[in-house]
Amino acid sequence: MFESAELGHRVEKEAYTLEVSGLREALLDSQYDLVAAKKFPVILLVAGVDGAGKSAVVSTLNEWMDPRHVQTNGFDAPTDEELHRPYMWRYWRALPPKGKIGIFDGSWYTWPINECGNGRIGHEVLDQDMELVRRFEQMLIDEGALILKFWMHLSKGVQKKRLTKLEADPKTSWRVTPRDWKHFKRYDALREAAERALRLTSTADAPWIVVEATDARYQKLTVGRVLLQALRARLDRPSTGPAAVKAPPAPPALDGLNVLRALDLSKRMERVDYDRELEAWQGKLSVLTRHKRFKERAVVLVFEGSDAAGKGGSIRRITQAVDARLCRIVPIAAPTEEERAQPYLWRFWRHLPGRGKILIFDRSWYGRVLVERVEGFCAEADWMRAYGEINDFEAQIAKSKAILAKFWLAISPEEQLRRFQERQETPFKRFKITEEDWRNREKWPAYEAAVCDMVARTSTEIAPWTLVESEDKLYARIKILRTLCERIEEAL
Amino acid sequence: MFESAELGHRVEKEAYTLEVSGLREALLDSQYDLVAAKKFPVILLVAGVDGAGKSAVVSTLNEWMDPRHVQTNGFDAPTDEELHRPYMWRYWRALPPKGKIGIFDGSWYTWPINECGNGRIGHEVLDQDMELVRRFEQMLIDEGALILKFWMHLSKGVQKKRLTKLEADPKTSWRVTPRDWKHFKRYDALREAAERALRLTSTADAPWIVVEATDARYQKLTVGRVLLQALRARLDRPSTGPAAVKAPPAPPALDGLNVLRALDLSKRMERVDYDRELEAWQGKLSVLTRHKRFKERAVVLVFEGSDAAGKGGSIRRITQAVDARLCRIVPIAAPTEEERAQPYLWRFWRHLPGRGKILIFDRSWYGRVLVERVEGFCAEADWMRAYGEINDFEAQIAKSKAILAKFWLAISPEEQLRRFQERQETPFKRFKITEEDWRNREKWPAYEAAVCDMVARTSTEIAPWTLVESEDKLYARIKILRTLCERIEEAL
Repeated sequence: MFESAELGHRVEKEAYTLEVSGLREALLDSQYDLVAAKKFPVILLVAGVDGAGKSAVVSTLNEWMDPRHVQTNGFDAPTDEELHRPYMWRYWRALPPKGKIGIFDGSWYTWPINECGNGRIGHEVLDQDMELVRRFEQMLIDEGALILKFWMHLSKGVQKKRLTKLEADPKTSWRVTPRDWKHFKRYDALREAAERALRLTSTADAPWIVVEATDARYQKLTVGRVLLQALRARLDRPSTGPAAVKAPPAPPALDGLNVLRALDLSKRMERVDYDRELEAWQGKLSVLTRHKRFKERAVVLVFEGSDAAGKGGSIRRITQAVDARLCRIVPIAAPTEEERAQPYLWRFWRHLPGRGKILIFDRSWYGRVLVERVEGFCAEADWMRAYGEINDFEAQIAKSKAILAKFWLAISPEEQLRRFQERQETPFKRFKITEEDWRNREKWPAYEAAVCDMVARTSTEIAPWTLVESEDKLYARIKILRTLCERIEEAL
Repeated sequence: MFESAELGHRVEKEAYTLEVSGLREALLDSQYDLVAAKKFPVILLVAGVDGAGKSAVVSTLNEWMDPRHVQTNGFDAPTDEELHRPYMWRYWRALPPKGKIGIFDGSWYTWPINECGNGRIGHEVLDQDMELVRRFEQMLIDEGALILKFWMHLSKGVQKKRLTKLEADPKTSWRVTPRDWKHFKRYDALREAAERALRLTSTADAPWIVVEATDARYQKLTVGRVLLQALRARLDRPSTGPAAVKAPPAPPALDGLNVLRALDLSKRMERVDYDRELEAWQGKLSVLTRHKRFKERAVVLVFEGSDAAGKGGSIRRITQAVDARLCRIVPIAAPTEEERAQPYLWRFWRHLPGRGKILIFDRSWYGRVLVERVEGFCAEADWMRAYGEINDFEAQIAKSKAILAKFWLAISPEEQLRRFQERQETPFKRFKITEEDWRNREKWPAYEAAVCDMVARTSTEIAPWTLVESEDKLYARIKILRTLCERIEEAL
């Protein structure tokens, strides 16, 4: 993989100067087209071996383009807010919005390649990590991002010479750290880890571009040309319709059975039992959330369900039991302008809680495969891919030691009708019922199919769905509280 | 101040139950009006002595209202991201947007009152802090916020009984920490500090409401009633026009002299000197930003100037010299929807850099007193009050050990015309000139007056304006680099 980057490529000064002036102008032109169109973000990774001039390339790109529309990200030790959240959180928060170029000097590759090269994780773990990275980047691409990944390469001999030379010059000696020499000692192992990582993540849409870093002019010109070409090609591409669907939806159940219809909606609870159980489970939840080890975990709750299924009331029974300062409810409505300029899941990532906190999503990322699917708010290909993206998202939440629980509140269409009518008659519940709710009701079968697909595809071991028989509100609330307590108890 | 809260107020259970049901309904109704109107945020502070049931009040408010539209904030030890920024940053980031209620359990008062009560700061410092708080709250009010500040009071005897009782019950003993007892020992001093703080910050628009906390029912009902009344009054108030102007603008200079006209725009620099100086100052800047102590400082730069005055080119000469990963440029354009739901300065606060970072504002909060004033985008009262708000903002930046430098790039109207024409003729500079630029030109005298007022009112010792003679771009760039280097050097 690195052979073609050990050939001693170089560019003479005159040729460089000559080409650069045209290149700069063309890059600037393309950049302004990008800014004006605001159609997609550019994510540019500058990775590679130590001493391979990565920061010089980053500086040059900033110089060649208008730095006001470039966001350059370096990643030192994570802050404590970052440490308390999933590994990818710090990269999500650094993603450029549409129209901007985000340069990543250091990225989601840095840690796995270093760890593997230094023998702290094996190939299996690296491979797993790279598979996640591959899917993450595929998601970015599906969301419209242009991804360019540059790997700056130096042969062992050249790297040694380079580090020695940098160190000798007082002006540049600061650039060489003891860590660089430590890395150099493991050159072969790091090279092997990098090659493996690059091979696994070089895809048709986001290939790695290995650049020989021996000659700075060759290196910069290569990066500049590739960037220009990719930008131009993407800007000039006629905007196509939504991508073709990649997989057929789940087959309909031939016998009319499905997970929703299989629920026993006749389950109910007497008021006297409810009062007793409510006190017991709320007490338990209160104790659990004050547990010493709870401070090391976060809780993410997802509430979905038909309109009027009782989400609000159930959420309130939880918030009553826990310290209000630890708890936040995010009601999901239409995305804001800043959210629309980012990949779909960004607006959920941004809210992820730190340790010791509880975040409740009142409706969630599942809107993609429910309302957006049924109402046609997004293309079929988009909601089809969402299942996998959601599973990856939830796997990362779970991996960060957060406790994730997802509730679907199920009621019958008859019960929904009864509640709608009741709401219209109760003055302080009027706000809860809108024209849209009545319209949605007419699409009951389509929603039912969407829910069944959702459960089939996203109820995973690490993030199972709890289907809650909600025909009787009292029964539903207790089941939710009990499930939540059990999940937390299990985790502590 | 606390005498009326030591009378032994109480409410019987029956009376409480009777009133609460109506109160809840009315509160909920008002809350939905608030959410629907999205006209203003509600900021509700719950402060007071330890053991005074603050968290119970917060829980009750969450229970009485729809918690999906309430954000409850507790403030433990600041995170490192918060520690690296001005003291108020963590409170700014917790401000509720319009239409929401933000409950602050712990607030900007907690630290000063505790510090003073514990003898670590004197009255003078407390008074200064309270003066800043008063101005901060006045700004929130002017921006439309409804502020309610509750102080939960217990007499010394009742507090002691309360803490002892809480501690004795295994169910509540966790609520009493050693810190609480430590505070109790300093009851008198803390009471005195609190009284002083409350007195200084009880204003007509944001008065403190002292609530006796001996009886929980009395306490909750009082808070609920006050909140309902304030919400209702505000919601039902006919929306008035902009407030009357509070102070006359600065007098025009009778002799035609002003700080801009006093500039010697004939200053220039030869290319050969420029090349030498550029290298020297960029080298210096590069060394300074890699200085060990630079990691403990942040830099905030503000660039303002007439159109085509050369802001972009000057900024580029800075970014060329520093590590791109440390540097971010924020070009200020129209505020986003999330920004419009917050006080004016929120969109600048959110970008403030951590230590070791450089943030460059390409245009800034001064838009308020320049373009918004001249074009009439905001009411006179709003830009009039902005000077003071800006000075307070910058004082907080400076206090956090950030280095703040503000540049006004000045050119003559003739030079501007020449540059506009040049831009229209240069293909890759066309984007830089718009219809609006031509329109703005016609208002030159109004802009000149606005700039002179701005300099007169916001050039302070801690955040002076540097007026840059920019008729010659080379001269301007070197002056900016030199000023910046001097400011950093002075600070390190």
